[in-house]
Amino acid sequence: MESNSRRSFIKKSALVSAGISLLPNLSYGINLNKSKKKEILKLAFIGVGLRGMNHLNNALNRKDVEIIAICDIDSSRIQISLDKIKKANFKAPKIFGKDSYDYRNLLDLEDVDAVVISTPWLWHTKMAVDTMKAGKYTGLEVSAANTMEECWDLVNTHEATGSHLMILENVNYRRDVLAVLNMVKQDVFGDLLHFRCGYKHDLRHVKFNNGKQAYGGGVEFGEKGTSEAAWRTQHSLLRNADVYPTHGLGPVATMADINRGNRFVSISSNSTKAVGLNKYIVENGGKNHPNAKLKWKQGDIITSTIETANGETIIVTHDVNSPRPYSLGFEVQGSQGISEFDYHTQRIHIEGKTKAHEWEGMESWFQKYDHPLWKKYGNSATEAGHGGIDFFVLNAFIESAKENSAPPMDAYDAAAWSAVTPLSEVSIENNGDAQDFPDFTRGNWIKRKPYNWIKDKF
Amino acid sequence: MESNSRRSFIKKSALVSAGISLLPNLSYGINLNKSKKKEILKLAFIGVGLRGMNHLNNALNRKDVEIIAICDIDSSRIQISLDKIKKANFKAPKIFGKDSYDYRNLLDLEDVDAVVISTPWLWHTKMAVDTMKAGKYTGLEVSAANTMEECWDLVNTHEATGSHLMILENVNYRRDVLAVLNMVKQDVFGDLLHFRCGYKHDLRHVKFNNGKQAYGGGVEFGEKGTSEAAWRTQHSLLRNADVYPTHGLGPVATMADINRGNRFVSISSNSTKAVGLNKYIVENGGKNHPNAKLKWKQGDIITSTIETANGETIIVTHDVNSPRPYSLGFEVQGSQGISEFDYHTQRIHIEGKTKAHEWEGMESWFQKYDHPLWKKYGNSATEAGHGGIDFFVLNAFIESAKENSAPPMDAYDAAAWSAVTPLSEVSIENNGDAQDFPDFTRGNWIKRKPYNWIKDKF
Repeated sequence: MESNSRRSFIKKSALVSAGISLLPNLSYGINLNKSKKKEILKLAFIGVGLRGMNHLNNALNRKDVEIIAICDIDSSRIQISLDKIKKANFKAPKIFGKDSYDYRNLLDLEDVDAVVISTPWLWHTKMAVDTMKAGKYTGLEVSAANTMEECWDLVNTHEATGSHLMILENVNYRRDVLAVLNMVKQDVFGDLLHFRCGYKHDLRHVKFNNGKQAYGGGVEFGEKGTSEAAWRTQHSLLRNADVYPTHGLGPVATMADINRGNRFVSISSNSTKAVGLNKYIVENGGKNHPNAKLKWKQGDIITSTIETANGETIIVTHDVNSPRPYSLGFEVQGSQGISEFDYHTQRIHIEGKTKAHEWEGMESWFQKYDHPLWKKYGNSATEAGHGGIDFFVLNAFIESAKENSAPPMDAYDAAAWSAVTPLSEVSIENNGDAQDFPDFTRGNWIKRKPYNWIKDKF
Repeated sequence: MESNSRRSFIKKSALVSAGISLLPNLSYGINLNKSKKKEILKLAFIGVGLRGMNHLNNALNRKDVEIIAICDIDSSRIQISLDKIKKANFKAPKIFGKDSYDYRNLLDLEDVDAVVISTPWLWHTKMAVDTMKAGKYTGLEVSAANTMEECWDLVNTHEATGSHLMILENVNYRRDVLAVLNMVKQDVFGDLLHFRCGYKHDLRHVKFNNGKQAYGGGVEFGEKGTSEAAWRTQHSLLRNADVYPTHGLGPVATMADINRGNRFVSISSNSTKAVGLNKYIVENGGKNHPNAKLKWKQGDIITSTIETANGETIIVTHDVNSPRPYSLGFEVQGSQGISEFDYHTQRIHIEGKTKAHEWEGMESWFQKYDHPLWKKYGNSATEAGHGGIDFFVLNAFIESAKENSAPPMDAYDAAAWSAVTPLSEVSIENNGDAQDFPDFTRGNWIKRKPYNWIKDKF
C-alpha cells in the first residue's frame, strides 16, 4: 500500500490543505477555477470493471472527449479497455494500476480534467476525496459513501477545494422517472405527500459465484469469488443496513427538491431476519459447504421511512437476498393524485383527469410529459447500457465538467443519499428509533434554488 | 345518560366484579360456562346503522338464529330494522334506544346469548366490556379500541368474565386473503419475512356530507353531518394516528400467527402533513366555509412499520384523505417468494414455480388454494355485502357462539390490532421513535396454538 505515489500524494495534498487553511472558504457553490467552456474534456477512468467499462464505452461514442488515462489493478480489465479504445480510434491512454494506490499517480497528471470512479464501495469516498483534492471534476459511482464520516468527507472536500463532485446515479435518467419528475414540476400531483422507492433486486447470483464467472455457478465470495462477489458480499456478512439506497432515493430526492428548499430530517429503519443467503448457499452448495456456517448480519428486507422538512414521507426498501422480480417500486403521491411505476406496473390516478376511484395506464402521460432530453437523445441513448440511462448520466457529467459548473446531483446529494446507510444501521440496531439526518448543506438548503432538471441541454 | 338501566347495571356489574375478586381467574382460554352446542342462537344487535344492518340482513338469511332485541338511538334505523325482520318472517324483537345507555337494559335480558355491536368507535370498548360482563358472547365491529387502556379493558374483561369477544374483521374472509392464508399455511412462501397492508381508501365523501345523505353532497360533519360523518370525522380533526388499522392488519396477523407463537414487538410510525381534508372543504364548500378554517391533526398518509417476535416486518398504511383508487395493498413475502394482491393487482413469484425474475398471474393459485369455506359457501355468500365476506364473518361469530368456543379472532387479537392506534400516535409525535407493544397475552403467546383457519366448518 505504501508506494512512491502515495508518499508524493500525501506531500502534495498536505500543500493543498495548507493553502486552504490560509484562505477563507468562499467557494460555496461556486468553483474558484471557473473559466470558459472546454470544447474537449480530458477524461480518466479509475476502475474499468463491468461498471467502469460501461462508462468508457459511452465516452468512446463521443466527439468531445479524450481518454488520457485508465487505472485498474486487474490487468485483464486494462487489456479489454485498451482494445476497445484502439478499436474506437482514440489515442492510447496512460495506464495505472500497479498497486491499489497507483490511482494517485493518475491524479498527478496535469492534463486530466475529469475522472470517473467505478470501484468497490470501500474505495469510493477515498478516491473521490483524492480526486477533488487534485483539482479534477469528479464523477463517483453509487453508493458514494459507507459511513457518516465519509459523507462529511465528500462535502468538506468539495467545499475546501471548490472541485465539483457528481454522484453518477443513472436511475435519475430513466425515461419514466424523468417524465414523472416533469409531471411533479408541472404540479400534476399537487402538494407532495408520500413517496415509495427502493432496491428490490434478487442479487443472490451476484453475491455468489464460482470465482470464474461474474454471476452464479457457485456459492463463493470474497477471495474465492470474482467480480462483485469479491467485495460486495462482505457488506452483507457484517452490516445490517440499507447499503445501497441511491437507485430508489436519488430520483425521489430530485422530485422532492432535497437540499434545495427541502431536506431529509429523520429516518426510522427496521429489518427482517436474515434467511435468504444461507438458504441459497445450502441449496446450491450443500449444507457442508464452509459458507453454510456463516451468520449473515444483513436482514433480508430493510424498510426505512424518511421524514422531510416539507412534511413528506419516503419509504425506502432494500430487498436483495430473496427470489423476486426486479423493481425499484416507485410511488409518488400528492394531494391531487398518485402514480405507481416500475418495470411491471405503470398506473396513475389524478383527480379530475382519471375516473374516480380507478387507475389508468400511463402511456398518454409518458408521451405528454416525455422529458426534453429523451425527446432529443432517445435514439442515440438507447444504444448505451441500462436502457439508455447510462448515456444520460455520463452526458450530464461530461457537459457539466466541460463548463466546470455545479452538476445536477452534487456532493450534498451524494452525502444525504448515502447517509441512509449509516443512519439505517443505527436505527435497525434500536428497533426503528428515529435518527436525525445531518444537514450537510449547513442550513443553506433554505436558500439553495432547485436544480432545473427540465431542460434539453443535459 | 343517568337512567334506571344505568343504575341497575352498575349494581349488577358490581356484584359480578365482587364475585370475580373472590375467585382466582382460572378461565384463561376456557369458558367457564361451556355447555353443549346450541341449535338456535338468540341474538341481539346494538347499533343498526348501515354496518349493523348488514349483519342483521345476514342473520335474517339463517335458520339457526332468533332476533331477541335490537338497539339504536336513531328511531328511523329501528323502523327500517323492524320492517326487514317482519318481511323475513322472524318474530318481532324487543326495542331499545331511548337513550345512549339503554343498551344496558338490552344486556339485562336473560335470553340473549350473543350480541353484535356496530356503533361509533368511541362506544365500542365500553359496550363490549358491558356485554362480556353481562355474560353474552360478544361480537365487536372494527376498530375495537381507541386507547391503550381500552385495549387492556377488552383483555381484562374477557379474562375476568370468561365471556368470549370476537372482533368482526370481515377482510379476514376475503376469498383472495383466505387463499393466500392457505398458501402461507402450506408453506408456499417459505420462511415469512415481510408483509404490507393498510387502509388506502378515499374517504373524503364519507367524512363530509350535507347532513342528509350518507356520502358527499357537502362539507359538513359532526352535529351538522349524518351517518359516519357525524362521529368519524372528529377523529381526523384531533388525532394524528392510524385510527383504522385492522382491515389490513387483521389478515396479516393471522398469516403471521400473531398471539399464537408470534407477537407484535414494536412499531415505528411517521405521518405526512395534513392537506387533503382542508383542500376538499375549500374546493367543495368554498374558502369562506367555517370548516375551511379548521386545522386537521391527522396526517394524510401514515406509515407504520411493525417488528414481530419471529423477525418479520409489517408495513401498515393509513391513507384516507386523498384522491386514489381503493386498495388494502396486501403483500406477503417469504424466503421462497412473494405475492402482491389487491383489487387491481394479483401477482406472484415463487422460486422454482415461476419463471426467474418474472411475475405470474394468480388465477391458478387462487383456484388451487381456494379456501374450503369459500368452496362450500361461495354461492350463498356472494349475496351478502362486501363481496360475501360479511356472510363469513357473521357465520364464524354465530357458529363460535353456538359452541361457546373461542372465536378465530379473539380479545387478544382485538387488543393487539387496535393498539396500533395509540402506539402510532405516540411514535408519530416522536418522529418515528419505536414504541413497544404490550404483550396482551401475558407471555402466553409462546404456548398458544395457531388457530386452525383452514377448515370448512367456520
